[in-house]
Amino acid sequence: MSKETTKKKFTKHASPTADGSSKPDLMYDRNVPKPSHAEYARTLIAKMDVATLCTISEKSKGHPYGSFVTYAMHNGDLIFLLSQLAEHTKNLNANSKASALIAETGEGNPLALSRVTLVGECLEVQDDERESVKKSFIEAHESASVYADWEDFAFFRLNVKSVRYIGGFGRMSWVNESRWNSSEPDPLLENSDDIITHMNEDHSDALVLYCQTMSKAKETSHAVMTHIDRYGFEMMATINSETKPIRLGFEKDVKTPDEARIELVKMVKEARKLISQN
Amino acid sequence: MSKETTKKKFTKHASPTADGSSKPDLMYDRNVPKPSHAEYARTLIAKMDVATLCTISEKSKGHPYGSFVTYAMHNGDLIFLLSQLAEHTKNLNANSKASALIAETGEGNPLALSRVTLVGECLEVQDDERESVKKSFIEAHESASVYADWEDFAFFRLNVKSVRYIGGFGRMSWVNESRWNSSEPDPLLENSDDIITHMNEDHSDALVLYCQTMSKAKETSHAVMTHIDRYGFEMMATINSETKPIRLGFEKDVKTPDEARIELVKMVKEARKLISQN
Repeated sequence: MSKETTKKKFTKHASPTADGSSKPDLMYDRNVPKPSHAEYARTLIAKMDVATLCTISEKSKGHPYGSFVTYAMHNGDLIFLLSQLAEHTKNLNANSKASALIAETGEGNPLALSRVTLVGECLEVQDDERESVKKSFIEAHESASVYADWEDFAFFRLNVKSVRYIGGFGRMSWVNESRWNSSEPDPLLENSDDIITHMNEDHSDALVLYCQTMSKAKETSHAVMTHIDRYGFEMMATINSETKPIRLGFEKDVKTPDEARIELVKMVKEARKLISQN
Repeated sequence: MSKETTKKKFTKHASPTADGSSKPDLMYDRNVPKPSHAEYARTLIAKMDVATLCTISEKSKGHPYGSFVTYAMHNGDLIFLLSQLAEHTKNLNANSKASALIAETGEGNPLALSRVTLVGECLEVQDDERESVKKSFIEAHESASVYADWEDFAFFRLNVKSVRYIGGFGRMSWVNESRWNSSEPDPLLENSDDIITHMNEDHSDALVLYCQTMSKAKETSHAVMTHIDRYGFEMMATINSETKPIRLGFEKDVKTPDEARIELVKMVKEARKLISQN
């Protein structure tokens, strides 16, 4: 295929950042523990509740067909409540091959946000499982209780065979089925917003100390926590007039907000000790 | 397929509202002029800038594959800037059959929001058109200028053959190709937020008058404008403690904020006349 001569040649492209600049030098240990792509994907799915369901079109033969759906989780699978009148349901009844794309929403460059595609067979839930599936769905989508039992609605389940995770620019991989099945959403998901708010409102001095003593950002004057998970947490550190991302790991995997608090306090004590030694 | 006996029987289901209640009686003329589904879809596409691109998977043979993309409009077509390393690009290079789902974002029940699926062939843009397509894309996504000319990125265009529009519960149709090609985004799109804010902040008395005199909501005590387009505008009217949607049409199609203002002023005068006659 001919390309214009003005095109720059890159055999493998670098990862543009949200503001279009090139990737900065990392200010923290590249090997800091962090969730696997399977875990990030599971967490994203647990956080969101809408997806694009991709089916094979009956009307436009051979074309993939994307439609908007709400979903819930049931025993680790994605479940949908679909109208038999809808295009995607007609498509699935003829061909169960499907995928679902779930994309994070947020501010800034949308390509810097994470998304996951689950590929598999999407089949109607059988009668023996229907009540338990319905319960999970209604818990997530209360208003669906109005039509969940209507004759022309049915529950479907996507049986995942492969998973593509994209965490933003240049962070992507295929997740294999066994890794997928053995992974779980981050246990702090429900509490992470509260922890982040608390740390930023009441412990910004501790955040600065972490950056100064446990990362390369010794000159940090201000730091804001942006993320926390079972393996560690992330901050945006202000160094002179620049901000840099910092990730630090916990000494051990945490599963509850209390365990996270214990780790964060332990790290403040350690940071104070490091400061006093200098 | 056997169904549980507890299921209620509906041959055609009604349209549940966002709060799960049944559809209320319309408080305005059902035949009020409003945009066609093609126009609503065109407007939604002009408003948003991210989509799910659906392709046929090369890796998972025969499966539809959904991926997250940014898009821009170019001469009425959807265009994408895709990395040759990405799954969707490998898929399109092997099979150009595609669709794109664009979904409105907002508060409340996500199924009450609008979305559109465009089905067609998605092909790489040829050299003779590349610069003009690039210009359109960069205008919409400035940060893409960093990598638009990299060797492994290419522009693709979706040549739309059929369109499925869903405006919320029970409002949906297929839009045919000629109707699609002859429709345009609403000309007030860029200004509608400003007009709505202005009307709600400075002319809430006029909104109440419109409802009292030009709809069945004679008892309206308060009204909030929620939407405006070339054919008319919509309000939520408070009647006793309930709120009801009201749509009123302009006497003639408007194309600019000035023309909208003239129509709105004309309607206030008409409403005052109607009130004084009672």
